Amino acid sequence: MTLHRLEHVVSFGDCDPAGIVFYPNYYAWMDATFHGYLRTSGPGHAALCRDLGARGVGLMETGMRYRAPASDGDRIEITLDAIDWAEKSLRASFTARVGARLIFEGFETRGLFVADAEGRLRAAPVAALRALLG
Amino acid sequence: MTLHRLEHVVSFGDCDPAGIVFYPNYYAWMDATFHGYLRTSGPGHAALCRDLGARGVGLMETGMRYRAPASDGDRIEITLDAIDWAEKSLRASFTARVGARLIFEGFETRGLFVADAEGRLRAAPVAALRALLG
Amino acid sequence: MTLHRLEHVVSFGDCDPAGIVFYPNYYAWMDATFHGYLRTSGPGHAALCRDLGARGVGLMETGMRYRAPASDGDRIEITLDAIDWAEKSLRASFTARVGARLIFEGFETRGLFVADAEGRLRAAPVAALRALLG
Amino acid sequence: MTLHRLEHVVSFGDCDPAGIVFYPNYYAWMDATFHGYLRTSGPGHAALCRDLGARGVGLMETGMRYRAPASDGDRIEITLDAIDWAEKSLRASFTARVGARLIFEGFETRGLFVADAEGRLRAAPVAALRALLG
Repeated sequence: MTLHRLEHVVSFGDCDPAGIVFYPNYYAWMDATFHGYLRTSGPGHAALCRDLGARGVGLMETGMRYRAPASDGDRIEITLDAIDWAEKSLRASFTARVGARLIFEGFETRGLFVADAEGRLRAAPVAALRALLG
Repeated sequence: MTLHRLEHVVSFGDCDPAGIVFYPNYYAWMDATFHGYLRTSGPGHAALCRDLGARGVGLMETGMRYRAPASDGDRIEITLDAIDWAEKSLRASFTARVGARLIFEGFETRGLFVADAEGRLRAAPVAALRALLG
Repeated sequence: MTLHRLEHVVSFGDCDPAGIVFYPNYYAWMDATFHGYLRTSGPGHAALCRDLGARGVGLMETGMRYRAPASDGDRIEITLDAIDWAEKSLRASFTARVGARLIFEGFETRGLFVADAEGRLRAAPVAALRALLG
Repeated sequence: MTLHRLEHVVSFGDCDPAGIVFYPNYYAWMDATFHGYLRTSGPGHAALCRDLGARGVGLMETGMRYRAPASDGDRIEITLDAIDWAEKSLRASFTARVGARLIFEGFETRGLFVADAEGRLRAAPVAALRALLG
């Protein structure tokens, strides 16, 4: 079940001297897919943080496997396929394709970061975040 | 007359600590609009270079005026409004809007760069490029 | 007289399929040079905004002329050469070189943006900003 | 044993609306650290590809754990700590710190991609690459 879908037409400037997408751009588009989900299934990142008294739905870990390259003109579709909820983190899973061709599989583990009394960021329980999403 | 149109939904990661788009991203999207034009009105940058024996349709000068900020969730539309052709350069003019709100006006002056006998890049006449577009 | 200097070793991923720096990266490095200046000649952007009740020292206009390409491994040096102060804006001028080779000349016109009663950003006089720098 | 070290002063534009580094930038700097290694312990990516008849020392998998945030003005140091060589891949391990503060731990699994008779990229044995490094 797809939770969110983002389309991007790969451009010349997204690519490196080998002519294929420079991989940190894939992470930027994966992140944009997650933020698109926050905007369509919830009120968006800024409003969520305001409602929950949080600094951000920030990153704990990310990773990605590359299956095939993409290049200038390819219409890439990134889907947020699932979110697994733990007590103080969530793990979002993504897939990217150009047509039927699998480009990458990736994940983001995120926490709900709240400043403690000393101003240090701590991961808070994510149940309140989950309740605000869809 | 719009020569090409690119849409992009601004994401959290496109924005800076002031919460608005970090301006070099506007240039990346403006560049993507030009490359989209090369792909829809011509065969795309790679094929154009092959056909013309060129290294690239590269930049001589760029500039941009910022009219209003854009932020997370804004659907920005960038249009390539006109191309003015000179002998060894072209000047492409762009406008970006979120709905009716003007975000920026920008331009790119580009040349057709060809390697000379010593391997140095030189601006060649752009007439052959123009003939392959549209 | 150089107001600030930033060095960056160009990497593979900064470059496009033509093997040369993708130009929006030049703007990102030019912007970083200005922010470095705010940090070394003043207290940095965040503290300046706090002190001045501003949202940002934001952009009104930018532009750049490209003189020679740079590629993977080139050590590029960007200098902030001058700031011209007007009443509600400043114009910062930059030059970038790899060794003796001129890469680009660029500028940023910036204002001190303050939210008005309706929350809209307005350009305020920059004299207070100037007083905090250097 | 550190194989390569890259320093970067985090700038305003590297950061997101939460005021901390937007994580895809960490990947870009990790990638730049690897390419710096190819340039200092070998002849650099372009020459390696030429010598080995390869299209690129490209990515199979990447990942990163975030330990503490970094923001505008932080001097981040990224080290390539180790390379583990397999038959058709290598795994490079990285650590990033601001002073004594651990920012992230990351890895890149890379292959030596060579075009086969049909032009499709295949991972070739990496022994020849290893022989050219160090």
